[in-house]
Amino acid sequence: MNIGIIGLGVMGSAIAHRAIKAGFDVVGFDTHIEHARRARMMGVNIVECAPLVAGNARIIWLMLPAGPVVDQVIQELRPMLHAGDIIIDGGNSFFQDSLRRYQALQKDEIFFVDCGTSGGLRGKDSGFCLMVGGDFPIFERIEPFLKAVAAPDGYAYIGPSGAGHYVKMVHNGIEYALMQAYAEGFHLLKEGYYEHLDLAAIAHVWEQGSVVRSWLLSLLQEILQEDQELHDISGRVDQGGTGRWTAQEAHARTVPMPCLEQALAVRSWSHKTTGNYATKLIALMRHKFGGHRVYKKSEDIPV
Amino acid sequence: MNIGIIGLGVMGSAIAHRAIKAGFDVVGFDTHIEHARRARMMGVNIVECAPLVAGNARIIWLMLPAGPVVDQVIQELRPMLHAGDIIIDGGNSFFQDSLRRYQALQKDEIFFVDCGTSGGLRGKDSGFCLMVGGDFPIFERIEPFLKAVAAPDGYAYIGPSGAGHYVKMVHNGIEYALMQAYAEGFHLLKEGYYEHLDLAAIAHVWEQGSVVRSWLLSLLQEILQEDQELHDISGRVDQGGTGRWTAQEAHARTVPMPCLEQALAVRSWSHKTTGNYATKLIALMRHKFGGHRVYKKSEDIPV
Repeated sequence: MNIGIIGLGVMGSAIAHRAIKAGFDVVGFDTHIEHARRARMMGVNIVECAPLVAGNARIIWLMLPAGPVVDQVIQELRPMLHAGDIIIDGGNSFFQDSLRRYQALQKDEIFFVDCGTSGGLRGKDSGFCLMVGGDFPIFERIEPFLKAVAAPDGYAYIGPSGAGHYVKMVHNGIEYALMQAYAEGFHLLKEGYYEHLDLAAIAHVWEQGSVVRSWLLSLLQEILQEDQELHDISGRVDQGGTGRWTAQEAHARTVPMPCLEQALAVRSWSHKTTGNYATKLIALMRHKFGGHRVYKKSEDIPV
Repeated sequence: MNIGIIGLGVMGSAIAHRAIKAGFDVVGFDTHIEHARRARMMGVNIVECAPLVAGNARIIWLMLPAGPVVDQVIQELRPMLHAGDIIIDGGNSFFQDSLRRYQALQKDEIFFVDCGTSGGLRGKDSGFCLMVGGDFPIFERIEPFLKAVAAPDGYAYIGPSGAGHYVKMVHNGIEYALMQAYAEGFHLLKEGYYEHLDLAAIAHVWEQGSVVRSWLLSLLQEILQEDQELHDISGRVDQGGTGRWTAQEAHARTVPMPCLEQALAVRSWSHKTTGNYATKLIALMRHKFGGHRVYKKSEDIPV
């Protein structure tokens, strides 16, 4: 089975790696020469433009930044697509956009699947968590591919079109609040009553049987093991769209999400100042799981 | 080696169970006949009063509710204690109280160890996470016992007297915010754009390789597997002291902990109303890990 992948950055190339390892033929495209070159070395059959991917695969996985670029690529692919073809959007698109794309492609009997993808950089080796929305029979058709990409038992059909991205959006909203929860706790330990506590040792012991043990905590342990002072980095933290969208959706549904709101407020504040110890930890967690940018101290905006 | 345990409720008897399994002789006392009876069946040598525990063991573990009862029991034990004896407070005492008790007992060369204990009901089988404060040589003396009680690699010397309970306090502060983070996310999924999502299936797939995977999430999965509607329970959630103490300590150190603040506010609100879907999930998580009380719908205070 041929799989097309458009967008071969960190996440897209990890998907390609797992598909190739499972025996799929992968044809791919990326506008960045360097991404394309790395993917070719991995065994991806790199083609010269997005439409050529559609010329060579009947299932196409998009791994692109959320927004207009997804529509643009679909537009480019469209003349090469046939009835029965499947486009999977594995990125963090807004669920209403996914619904709209699903409906637009449906007219030509092209199937659109929204797939929330979690797991970050480590997913390449241990597999991803996939939340799939769209038509159930199409989910079944792509299941062998999903199985190859996912961690063991790590994929699920969530519901109709948009539901995969919806659930991934809420997942990310939870993720924002979880990171804030850990970060503010370690901030207090850092500046608390007892000086010079070994924060890495504390994170390590918490991983063994405590109520707060988690994957994020194990990333924090690795971060603190390397450096607990964090003098050289800035506390500015970027944010994607999913956290804000979750808050907006919560407002629309009148569901209170006060922890998420606070996590978002702290991120915005961090970006206008130099942040604090907690936001440094958040920046480092994001870097650790997703390769996201960490600002150097010298990039601080003077307050 | 004889170990004394005073307080043989859910947590105390779990400690006794692990100690006995590791070959320690355990002598114990509990004011509740039923607790004592259950502990005797487990192999604890039950004695008639707290002082008799001190007559039979040179290391005594207290597993009592935080507050005056700890001072009261230490008072009762005192005439039977000798220089060199060790009292370990494994409960959730306020760290300043532990420091005070350490100093008071030091005069008679009795050693006081504060040990934060996490892991809840499941700790009985898989071992606890132990955060130990006090004198390092005393930590070394009790290490074989700590090892028996702890999960593999699940105990650590944290620092001077009070540091164990301090770190456990902050651990619990993080726990408050983590539970709120998950609960508000599942609340949105429950009342969100897509109706009838299978929340148990979502929790399950998130456990496989997603960024938000954790032990609390796996408890949530079990809860949602049993019932996702939660019509019969109240959203009132009790709270212990550790969350509030963490917030007070954060104020004293001018460390912002906005997620914890919100989690505390939601708990207080839940207790004055009937709560909401999120606080029902929090009540059920607390019940699942620690056996804490869940109110029935019929116990709701009318709003």
